[in-house]
Amino acid sequence: MPLKLYLAGPEVFLKDARSVLDAKAQLTRAYGFEPVKPGDIFIAPAPTPREFGLRISSVDEHMMNSADGIIANLTPFRGIAADVGTAFELGYMCAQGKIACAYTNVADSHFDRAMRHYEGSVSKDENGRWRGPDGISIEDVEMIDNLMLHGGVVRRSGLVAVHAAAPDALYSDLTAFEQCLKFIAERP
Amino acid sequence: MPLKLYLAGPEVFLKDARSVLDAKAQLTRAYGFEPVKPGDIFIAPAPTPREFGLRISSVDEHMMNSADGIIANLTPFRGIAADVGTAFELGYMCAQGKIACAYTNVADSHFDRAMRHYEGSVSKDENGRWRGPDGISIEDVEMIDNLMLHGGVVRRSGLVAVHAAAPDALYSDLTAFEQCLKFIAERP
Repeated sequence: MPLKLYLAGPEVFLKDARSVLDAKAQLTRAYGFEPVKPGDIFIAPAPTPREFGLRISSVDEHMMNSADGIIANLTPFRGIAADVGTAFELGYMCAQGKIACAYTNVADSHFDRAMRHYEGSVSKDENGRWRGPDGISIEDVEMIDNLMLHGGVVRRSGLVAVHAAAPDALYSDLTAFEQCLKFIAERP
Repeated sequence: MPLKLYLAGPEVFLKDARSVLDAKAQLTRAYGFEPVKPGDIFIAPAPTPREFGLRISSVDEHMMNSADGIIANLTPFRGIAADVGTAFELGYMCAQGKIACAYTNVADSHFDRAMRHYEGSVSKDENGRWRGPDGISIEDVEMIDNLMLHGGVVRRSGLVAVHAAAPDALYSDLTAFEQCLKFIAERP
């Protein structure tokens, strides 16, 4: 039985979601794994948008429960941080002790992006911690995103792959995604 | 033995983090629960910032493993979505089948905030789905954030509390947080 990998990421929101997800699935199979991903299962229309949302939540959680691992696309989404749905899913799989890898198509660290978010209006507090003009501290632990995400993967001996994709291929470039597949395939 | 509740949220990054976290802990005890939260345990300095980050990740996961439930502060953080660390933690606790409640101090829905993010430059695609000029679709399922977060709580019979806090009390207003405590205290 091939390992089942849940492919998490904000590409479900793309206009060409289907083709990006299909390409990820094909590559996953090429490495000997079985891909599971949002969109695999038809979800019946519901009486309200909210009810439909709950059905998607249920289906996606069931897919994660059936999977042996996750590859989470943590490329910044509509702002400076990863997609929160993907972050939820990474935490969900980490809690189950499953294989966890992650990647980002933006090479700048969380710290770099947060500093840019404040456009230079940052200062060090009395403890040497960088803070924005809103007083909010900027995590500086050499990670691609919040330490619970990056740390959760690393502490489970997973790979966090980083690749600087072209701006027009931010969510479709599969270089770092493939590094995760390769890493899982070559695990001892 | 009182129920242990993990208090997740971006308030750890505030300048007055200690006082906000202390106020949350005090209120949690007033409802008969034992609070556990980031910052409760001293974390020894590490050789590198990255190693220090990994230690925090480990300590926070251990605290979650020891807790019976989570109250996640999903108030938008540095952008239009929840803090990704908190999203990870909510997913982590949902996977463990623990009590899960969440709140936000911003009354606008995820849809409202995403629409504003694009400053009106949105249009409906051929399937009637709203998309930004970047082609990225806007989830419209009447939830406070990504459906995995809101749906994960609701499907576990948890409360998602919403309160419009004053801008200068965005992370310190405990009205909605207290609604979660009350909800958990009154569970059948």
